Amino acid sequence: MAGYSPGEQPSPGEQVIKLNTNENPFPPSPRVVEAIRRITPEALRRYPSSMADEFRVVAARVHGVPPESILAGNGSDDILQIALRTYCGPGDVLVCPAPTYSLYPVLAELADVRLIPIPWEPGWRLPTEALLGARGRAIFFANPNSPSGTWVPIADIEALAEGTEALVLVDEAYVDFADDNCLSLLRRRRNILITRTFSKGYALAGLRFGYAIGDPAVIANMAKVKDSYNCDVVAIAAACAALDDVEYARGNWRVIRAERERLFVELERRGFAVIPSQANFLLVTTPDAAHAGWLYSALKVRGVLVRFFDKPTLDNKLRISVGAPQENDRLLAALDASLDRDPSPIARSTTT
Amino acid sequence: MAGYSPGEQPSPGEQVIKLNTNENPFPPSPRVVEAIRRITPEALRRYPSSMADEFRVVAARVHGVPPESILAGNGSDDILQIALRTYCGPGDVLVCPAPTYSLYPVLAELADVRLIPIPWEPGWRLPTEALLGARGRAIFFANPNSPSGTWVPIADIEALAEGTEALVLVDEAYVDFADDNCLSLLRRRRNILITRTFSKGYALAGLRFGYAIGDPAVIANMAKVKDSYNCDVVAIAAACAALDDVEYARGNWRVIRAERERLFVELERRGFAVIPSQANFLLVTTPDAAHAGWLYSALKVRGVLVRFFDKPTLDNKLRISVGAPQENDRLLAALDASLDRDPSPIARSTTT
Repeated sequence: MAGYSPGEQPSPGEQVIKLNTNENPFPPSPRVVEAIRRITPEALRRYPSSMADEFRVVAARVHGVPPESILAGNGSDDILQIALRTYCGPGDVLVCPAPTYSLYPVLAELADVRLIPIPWEPGWRLPTEALLGARGRAIFFANPNSPSGTWVPIADIEALAEGTEALVLVDEAYVDFADDNCLSLLRRRRNILITRTFSKGYALAGLRFGYAIGDPAVIANMAKVKDSYNCDVVAIAAACAALDDVEYARGNWRVIRAERERLFVELERRGFAVIPSQANFLLVTTPDAAHAGWLYSALKVRGVLVRFFDKPTLDNKLRISVGAPQENDRLLAALDASLDRDPSPIARSTTT
Repeated sequence: MAGYSPGEQPSPGEQVIKLNTNENPFPPSPRVVEAIRRITPEALRRYPSSMADEFRVVAARVHGVPPESILAGNGSDDILQIALRTYCGPGDVLVCPAPTYSLYPVLAELADVRLIPIPWEPGWRLPTEALLGARGRAIFFANPNSPSGTWVPIADIEALAEGTEALVLVDEAYVDFADDNCLSLLRRRRNILITRTFSKGYALAGLRFGYAIGDPAVIANMAKVKDSYNCDVVAIAAACAALDDVEYARGNWRVIRAERERLFVELERRGFAVIPSQANFLLVTTPDAAHAGWLYSALKVRGVLVRFFDKPTLDNKLRISVGAPQENDRLLAALDASLDRDPSPIARSTTT
């Protein structure tokens, strides 16, 4: 098997505009940095709380749920794996709209779970009937979706969950940049599990901390499957501080959303087909559709990293993370330079 | 299923002599604390190196192996799970001497792997013939072993690995307190995988960082199974600093080994049967063998936590971590108070 292909991570010293893995362009809250500096040698020496109790209390307060509804993990990737293994044994079926987060098929393969992909309906609408018809043990999708950035209305998710006893996992990794979220559904539907991460909205991708919010019975089952000590004391303290200072994060979300709308307009003006996004990235179809891979390389040469998925249905597209204003300016300048001045590979090959 | 039962973790404020989960009684190196304080907001914001490249370089230098022989994980528990899933699919067989680290059966059950336990030979010698005869895909055991603290000579491990194509995983979580280790075998046997942790020898149980050392081909296979970003930037930086300052850690290992020998003598003097240990703990049979569970409780009431495994073959024993000198004094005083002054439960039950 091939394993998951994460986006490129340039080495610390490299000067590059990094718009390929949807990191937050702004630093984390100063309170997070302070919380990390306050970690004592004694806290490092001892095993952490197995269930990240301190974080559960903070998250429960912020989200208005009981602490027993919260499960912390080593990044939301850890949570996704735990949920999959809790609900799907070898040979069982996981159903996903396609395309969605490219980690799900990898996790399924590792767990000998059969993944049935169901193409999105036109306009990236949820293919509810087909998802239900596949009769899986669980249905996973990201909302906002990756790599499209598109949004499934909450009512559609409720209808899906009402039509099945399977676990409906809504991966809200990008929800901090959206207009709404699924929290209100938890009271009505026990088979909905929400996953969240601190990697995007809270600018803590380096820390690996995510969590699930769901019915206490679901969370208790997942707790048996997770590693005994899956979260470290530093990440727990940082996540608590970050969630406690949500106002700081919210200020950055507003800037990113505004920049997303500016980029949308600027990219359309340059001939890209842009999908309206509720996330901190845009999926764009390049003006000359065949050359997305070439444009990716042309941008990279100019010091701007974006994401190119060399896969059917995505190979004429680029996924571009929304950066800070100056980074987005640099992206647009690099796009202009690449599209105006460079001969296309086809032109080159016919002239040599 | 029941899941893994980690040892109790008292809340941060509780005043207790904690000798139940084999933490290091001394704080981590000041250089580790300094490395954590130096983490920049920019490092937190970005995804970490997927393979913990910085750590691989340091570990390779310290151990005299190529960086490609190192795989970092979120605690050695993460490494153990990755190794199991890499080598054993559903229905495959994992073989372990029994008893050994109690996590292995839990990991096996979670992965639908069949674990065949082979009792240790008298004197905790490796049951080589029976381990080979079970024909598993992998053989896992801890050396020094937990919960016994006993040591399998390197030559016996080499003979085991020579007799099979299966993966022989030697869990060296406690090796920093031992006289020897298996590193020298890696050059001769490609099917040996060593796992290490920073939780014990380096006093970083709170951080969750462990690693494997093995043949580059083995490591490459495991890399496909691991979470894409399984280690965070803080833990990577701390682990590098800890390994760079091995001299600091070594000083503490010397004290712990000396205290282990002192406790051995003192416990034998009090009528306990004590197994010679190469780890930072002792497995003792209580003077009145039936009452290990009661003695555990009597010590807990006196503010000393030790480990009681309520399982066949272990239910007349306690596992006691070696603490700092004053902690060990407190343990011995609490033992004296419990054994001399308290009526045994049987005495109590006959008088009421």
